[in-house]
Amino acid sequence: MPSRIMPHRGITVFSYAAVGGKEEHIGPLGAKLDFHDESGLFGAKTWELAEGEMEGLALEFALSKADLKGSDISLVFAGDLQNQCTATTHGLLPFGIPTLGIYGACSTCTEGLLLAALALGSPAVLRCAALTGSHFCAAERQFRLPLEYGGQRSPTAQWTATAAGAFLLCRYEDAPSPVRVTLSASMVGKPIDSGVSDASNMGAAMAPAAADSILTFLSESDTAPEDYDAIVTGDLGKEGTRLLYRLLEENGLCIRKQHTDCGLLLYDEAIQDIHAGASGCGCSAAALAAHFLPAFAEGKLQKILFLSTGALMSPSILEQGQSIVGIAPVICLEGGKQNSFCGAD
Amino acid sequence: MPSRIMPHRGITVFSYAAVGGKEEHIGPLGAKLDFHDESGLFGAKTWELAEGEMEGLALEFALSKADLKGSDISLVFAGDLQNQCTATTHGLLPFGIPTLGIYGACSTCTEGLLLAALALGSPAVLRCAALTGSHFCAAERQFRLPLEYGGQRSPTAQWTATAAGAFLLCRYEDAPSPVRVTLSASMVGKPIDSGVSDASNMGAAMAPAAADSILTFLSESDTAPEDYDAIVTGDLGKEGTRLLYRLLEENGLCIRKQHTDCGLLLYDEAIQDIHAGASGCGCSAAALAAHFLPAFAEGKLQKILFLSTGALMSPSILEQGQSIVGIAPVICLEGGKQNSFCGAD
Repeated sequence: MPSRIMPHRGITVFSYAAVGGKEEHIGPLGAKLDFHDESGLFGAKTWELAEGEMEGLALEFALSKADLKGSDISLVFAGDLQNQCTATTHGLLPFGIPTLGIYGACSTCTEGLLLAALALGSPAVLRCAALTGSHFCAAERQFRLPLEYGGQRSPTAQWTATAAGAFLLCRYEDAPSPVRVTLSASMVGKPIDSGVSDASNMGAAMAPAAADSILTFLSESDTAPEDYDAIVTGDLGKEGTRLLYRLLEENGLCIRKQHTDCGLLLYDEAIQDIHAGASGCGCSAAALAAHFLPAFAEGKLQKILFLSTGALMSPSILEQGQSIVGIAPVICLEGGKQNSFCGAD
Repeated sequence: MPSRIMPHRGITVFSYAAVGGKEEHIGPLGAKLDFHDESGLFGAKTWELAEGEMEGLALEFALSKADLKGSDISLVFAGDLQNQCTATTHGLLPFGIPTLGIYGACSTCTEGLLLAALALGSPAVLRCAALTGSHFCAAERQFRLPLEYGGQRSPTAQWTATAAGAFLLCRYEDAPSPVRVTLSASMVGKPIDSGVSDASNMGAAMAPAAADSILTFLSESDTAPEDYDAIVTGDLGKEGTRLLYRLLEENGLCIRKQHTDCGLLLYDEAIQDIHAGASGCGCSAAALAAHFLPAFAEGKLQKILFLSTGALMSPSILEQGQSIVGIAPVICLEGGKQNSFCGAD
């Protein structure tokens, strides 16, 4: 078998946008969001539809920054946290873009970017979008308890981000602006049974998958944590991060210096009551679009590993006594046209 | 923008398998299933877990026919009808294959095959699997009414197939046996709002998307229905097929001679009380693996368009007064190494 790492030649993320709700605006990345809505409704009548509106808005911003419209996009890879990905479907309707629905729970951001890079290997594909979002109120109703119930949240619980991120990718030669970032390689994650069956401890359910993906990627690329400016996980939160360090250190790997978790970036623990950190598809998507990609554009980052982490959790499967399976696809982003996997173009 | 059609060079489906339940075994394709279980439980304790077991079994059969094991597969594109695709996740756990979760409702079979063909454009990918399944009892509980309720089914209702199909794809040069079928091109579908909000009339909700995809594919490939041995839709059933003909004929296109719907192939109306036909991810997957691909192997088919049709339906969105969005990705399959889109290899 060839290496699990898939090199991508000459692929760039040329536009991106992030939108969020009230808490996301209060948090440290708030000022970098392209748009926020204090009410969390984004003009829609329900939380579920608001999630779709938010995804549509993020895509609209990413398109308009590049002076493009929906019909300029060959394909969009999109998904969300709602059953049957309905937020995505409804949010995308006005754009008329050919759509491939994906489901990777909170790993959807990385899954979409990875698939967009793969798809751009085909000359028939000109520009790809990757889109995802999540909504705190819709997620609580679907996965745990409706907000009206007023249940107390457990200390290990994370706060599903009300946020969406959109990304536009193309080959270098089709980029409308100078290439600031290259998606140089990716690796698909394996589903890993965490043994965890607590719907309020997603971090623990995802940590084993994140550990497996980091160990595999570093080993197969023959690189060390020091080769990266940052190793970014999606939404392990405090609990999952602690567990990730333990799992990696048991394997002789320490990433404490390089590691950042988007779930720990989105909110300010000192003033926001969000327990173990942020989560949701929108968490890593918003952090990537509002924080990491701008840092590449400003030349502050040269090479990162980015792995959104998904807890493939279903209330019906938990009721049937099954545990939560985690997954963590990986992408490598590099500054400008740098590409450690194919050489610079 | 380039054509919406994506040509694929030298990609073959080299192994496949289908499993089903009692009704699927009674139906016309029953004798061609690789395995069936009269109880519908496949050794599992719940219908939901049975769906995953079925998917695992289909993959196991497809692998063993090619004398391969899970570790020989680079990636699997997989999804099902359950919330959060949990059948897939649990069914795939024992294989340890890097997994990309997809959600296209009943269009998942074609979506997976299309993505597998795209992924095989990367030299880093050696062999891909596409896997999907659905379970009548799990789907009724989740989407409509639990069976225990004993509700009467509407005449337009379709019967979600208890079935799964698995497909293994690779490039010609890596095929373990002579190439019998080529996946020569594909086209991603656009989400189309049908205006239908009746969860018991999926056919009508999917017909506009199927019509849009067929019209677009024929127009962009400059081909006519006569150029194909068959134009196969996924699970429009009686109601959706009638509507598809009307929508196409309003646009001056008649496909009655070439058209077959997997939803009308799986059961025998004379002896099975299935109302408008079969549906579910497993419907088109089982029909492709048990009927169409064997027909290519026997030289009885030379070129077909295959489009599984998805109704992106969610009970929560319907409760909020929204309609059902349909989608219909397309693939073109050709006999041996024929390829109308890239020329024969």
